[in-house]
Amino acid sequence: MHVPVEFFRRIASAAAQETLPRFRRFGDILNKVEGGFDPVTEADREAEQAIRALIKAEHPGHGILGEEFGAENATSDHVWVIDPIDGTRSFISGVPLWGTLVGLTHKGDAVAGMMAQPFTGELYYASAGEAWLEGPEGDRRRLSTRRTTGLDQATLCTTTPALFQGDRRVAYDRLENAVRMPRYGTDCYGYAMLAAGNVDLVVEVGLQSYDIVALIPIIEAAGGMITEWNGGPAEEGGGIVAAATPELHAAAMEMLHAGRSDPVG
Amino acid sequence: MHVPVEFFRRIASAAAQETLPRFRRFGDILNKVEGGFDPVTEADREAEQAIRALIKAEHPGHGILGEEFGAENATSDHVWVIDPIDGTRSFISGVPLWGTLVGLTHKGDAVAGMMAQPFTGELYYASAGEAWLEGPEGDRRRLSTRRTTGLDQATLCTTTPALFQGDRRVAYDRLENAVRMPRYGTDCYGYAMLAAGNVDLVVEVGLQSYDIVALIPIIEAAGGMITEWNGGPAEEGGGIVAAATPELHAAAMEMLHAGRSDPVG
Repeated sequence: MHVPVEFFRRIASAAAQETLPRFRRFGDILNKVEGGFDPVTEADREAEQAIRALIKAEHPGHGILGEEFGAENATSDHVWVIDPIDGTRSFISGVPLWGTLVGLTHKGDAVAGMMAQPFTGELYYASAGEAWLEGPEGDRRRLSTRRTTGLDQATLCTTTPALFQGDRRVAYDRLENAVRMPRYGTDCYGYAMLAAGNVDLVVEVGLQSYDIVALIPIIEAAGGMITEWNGGPAEEGGGIVAAATPELHAAAMEMLHAGRSDPVG
Repeated sequence: MHVPVEFFRRIASAAAQETLPRFRRFGDILNKVEGGFDPVTEADREAEQAIRALIKAEHPGHGILGEEFGAENATSDHVWVIDPIDGTRSFISGVPLWGTLVGLTHKGDAVAGMMAQPFTGELYYASAGEAWLEGPEGDRRRLSTRRTTGLDQATLCTTTPALFQGDRRVAYDRLENAVRMPRYGTDCYGYAMLAAGNVDLVVEVGLQSYDIVALIPIIEAAGGMITEWNGGPAEEGGGIVAAATPELHAAAMEMLHAGRSDPVG
């Protein structure tokens, strides 16, 4: 199913109306919250409601799965998967690397998706096998990953190494030591930079479905490869290995699984 | 000496003309550089030349110290200190957390400074004891740090924990374990977020004078406190401890120096 960019734009705009006015409006508030909702939770909930309303109006038969309000009509062939604010730590720190994620699955496969960053005015999206970046002045360009094949040439993004525990930390450290440059603190923005040809690898653990579904079609349509750590589909979340090329993906997987006869579970 | 915002704007604009066209224009180029200059080095050098030209035209008697072209007339009472692109890793990864830093010292004390992020259109600056943020639409607001006093309420920014070695890593880890939330990958943007009341602490090591002089007046005029790890002036770089309040600065220093009778050298 093709999702027209105009629909992604409307979703991005509706979400931005709830998120942007609450961005950088913390001051001392965050430290004084007792009970009640803090601004980031409010932004998350209001944005998801706005997105759900648009989807229901446009596609009443489709299912919806969102971070804040769970699943509705989840047995539909088409299910929209929503994370209204991916990168909460960035959001509450004033750093414009968070994003609004909305993806569409068909029988479990991610087929279209968007990541919108309203402070910078960027909309990264993919549908029908093409991935695009639309800028704040409506400027558009086709997204294409870099042709990097070797780890020693690769920039690797992850949100923080502290998320990797036990065997996975050992595996992550082995990979980080093999790449040219690691970068932390990127959340969904790292995947967008991968699709745009600015970085080469994103590796994470502990993701939920709504953290990743929107990004899969963007990376794949830009020429990249994205799987779970076990090599299977990334749609359910878990550990994620995203790479600019299939060759680089294979090299990263080999490094993560080095010395093990079974895939890291 | 008061530096009018109009002069900061001209500097930011001249630098942006050299940096922005080279931002996200790497693709496979970066991996193919052999000899010659890569785009980030070009952007650094061209931006610094443009900034130097503006300063020389406006203040011919002043000294200049820049990352790329060193010192000129450095014995002048007034010396401008330039880092055309602070946050090179962000720049080459497509992440808009780098910035153009220009500070002014009078007899060694930082008295005015600016951090410009041209992709987001933000200009953070301070002069004559006031700190301001000017946005892309010319919207302005006074900068003011958050009133956080306790480490357990603090968000801590650092570029990467990997920069801390030996005793300093032990000290940094002790501090990180005491705060509410660490964030990585921020470079100069973390100091701007501190001044704007979005985060509470920035701790780093191994900085040069040109990495920090521009940021000192912004943090101080916003109500924060910034020193070297030894508690002395931050103008020469080295280890940096910047905090939203004097109380929080004292708490961070105590944690960094816990168990030592002498300041961490």
